[in-house]
Amino acid sequence: MKIVIFGVGLIGGSCALALRQANRAKTIIGVGRSRASLESALALGVIDSIGHADGATLRDADIVLLAMPVGQMSAVMAQIAPHLGAQTIVTDAGSTKQDVLSFAYAQLGAHVARFVPAHPIAGAEISGVSAARADLFRHRKVVLTPLAENLPQAVETVRTMWQACGADVREMQASRHDAVFAAVSHLPHLLAYALVHDIASRSDADVMFEFAAGGFRDFTRIAGSHPEMWRDISLANRDALLGEIDRYLHEVTALRNMLEQRDAAGLEQLFDFARNARSAWLAKLKT
Amino acid sequence: MKIVIFGVGLIGGSCALALRQANRAKTIIGVGRSRASLESALALGVIDSIGHADGATLRDADIVLLAMPVGQMSAVMAQIAPHLGAQTIVTDAGSTKQDVLSFAYAQLGAHVARFVPAHPIAGAEISGVSAARADLFRHRKVVLTPLAENLPQAVETVRTMWQACGADVREMQASRHDAVFAAVSHLPHLLAYALVHDIASRSDADVMFEFAAGGFRDFTRIAGSHPEMWRDISLANRDALLGEIDRYLHEVTALRNMLEQRDAAGLEQLFDFARNARSAWLAKLKT
Repeated sequence: MKIVIFGVGLIGGSCALALRQANRAKTIIGVGRSRASLESALALGVIDSIGHADGATLRDADIVLLAMPVGQMSAVMAQIAPHLGAQTIVTDAGSTKQDVLSFAYAQLGAHVARFVPAHPIAGAEISGVSAARADLFRHRKVVLTPLAENLPQAVETVRTMWQACGADVREMQASRHDAVFAAVSHLPHLLAYALVHDIASRSDADVMFEFAAGGFRDFTRIAGSHPEMWRDISLANRDALLGEIDRYLHEVTALRNMLEQRDAAGLEQLFDFARNARSAWLAKLKT
Repeated sequence: MKIVIFGVGLIGGSCALALRQANRAKTIIGVGRSRASLESALALGVIDSIGHADGATLRDADIVLLAMPVGQMSAVMAQIAPHLGAQTIVTDAGSTKQDVLSFAYAQLGAHVARFVPAHPIAGAEISGVSAARADLFRHRKVVLTPLAENLPQAVETVRTMWQACGADVREMQASRHDAVFAAVSHLPHLLAYALVHDIASRSDADVMFEFAAGGFRDFTRIAGSHPEMWRDISLANRDALLGEIDRYLHEVTALRNMLEQRDAAGLEQLFDFARNARSAWLAKLKT
């Protein structure tokens, strides 16, 4: 298998390492904006060579994985489209799917039959190829949102690739995917960034941070995530995310009003409900 | 040293274990609402015996530590006041300080000279004596908010007790304490409870939770905290907390509007600012 990875960062690099460890890749070629980052990937043995969005790199590739920030997806698809081999299967690792799907229809022409959108659920607050590891996807979910036009064999190839990385592969409608992740991933990221911004922009931020402890650290861990990537995700999933933000503002306002009215029973009931729901979720995760 | 601990849970129990390990306690007596919990503490060797809010337990105590939820503070102070020995030093482990201080003035009479309010910053989403451990306070901060009336020796005794537990002891005005912790601790707890409540109360909560991953887990870790304790903290620090909630609602609304207006540069700048502030904080923590 010849695999070409656009964007050899945490996700692209970890996929390369995992496929190599599973003996699923003969050649892995990295392509990207940053020469320095590709040189690192090469030095770390994550990729075998550095390629370009051209025929030499792409013509005989078995799989092309697009693992750059979602904001570059459309431009990269336009660049690769003329050079793809007829058999080459293309997939992506974007955190949003409806936008990626519309880019694919716009840019890939008939090749959409071999484009299988995917989202590996393995983000981290660290980024870059130096953080890549072969076991990043082990026991993590990867969601495929196949297109109606997809060849069954293309879907199967992408499924097999992620299973070789140790992932638990699922399928979903793209719109459903975006709605679910707006709630459980995109919203919490925005909320964490907002809290750190809120605290850090005060004149007494030093004292605030001095007494912030483990709860604050964990709550804001995702505010360490890649700003450009999360800018792109937010914009790409804007409508669903705006809906989630409004829903959350409503939720917090209701809680605020309980507190203002000193509704002790209401507060305890809400806290207790949330704690129990979270415990039940964690218990299920472990089984 | 004879030490009496009201509320032998995570905090009270860990303090007992730490003082025992440091050889600072001859006798540790536990007092509390739940007989079963005190029996556990006894069985685990956390306390030497079970006492009551009476003269036999309190008269010759060197230190009385009030480690129950803040909501019980006033009632317990009223119960112990008539039985305290003249030399007994009293302290607490409440997460809010202005309310505790006002209870002390109301209930302890002249004994306020020997009442030193304190807040060990070592909460956890686990609770109860079975979670107690001798090293819980090691390298953690304990904030004392001494009263103008405090005898220097009383403050010194409480400081020494927490230092013996391995803590880094600081002093602060009670009002300042409550303002700082409203922002960096109480607000994030409410926000985490609100998010879990928001997700868990949907008809499709199962699917949402199924795809929630590590970011969601860490963001909501503090929503696993003790509901009664956090009800009491929220109400005790209501005014500061309402101010923080309003500030945060304003912050999230501004972020929402950036997203609605597709302000890519503004979003990235805010995310970047937050990430950098958090990284600088973590780097400082490590030094």
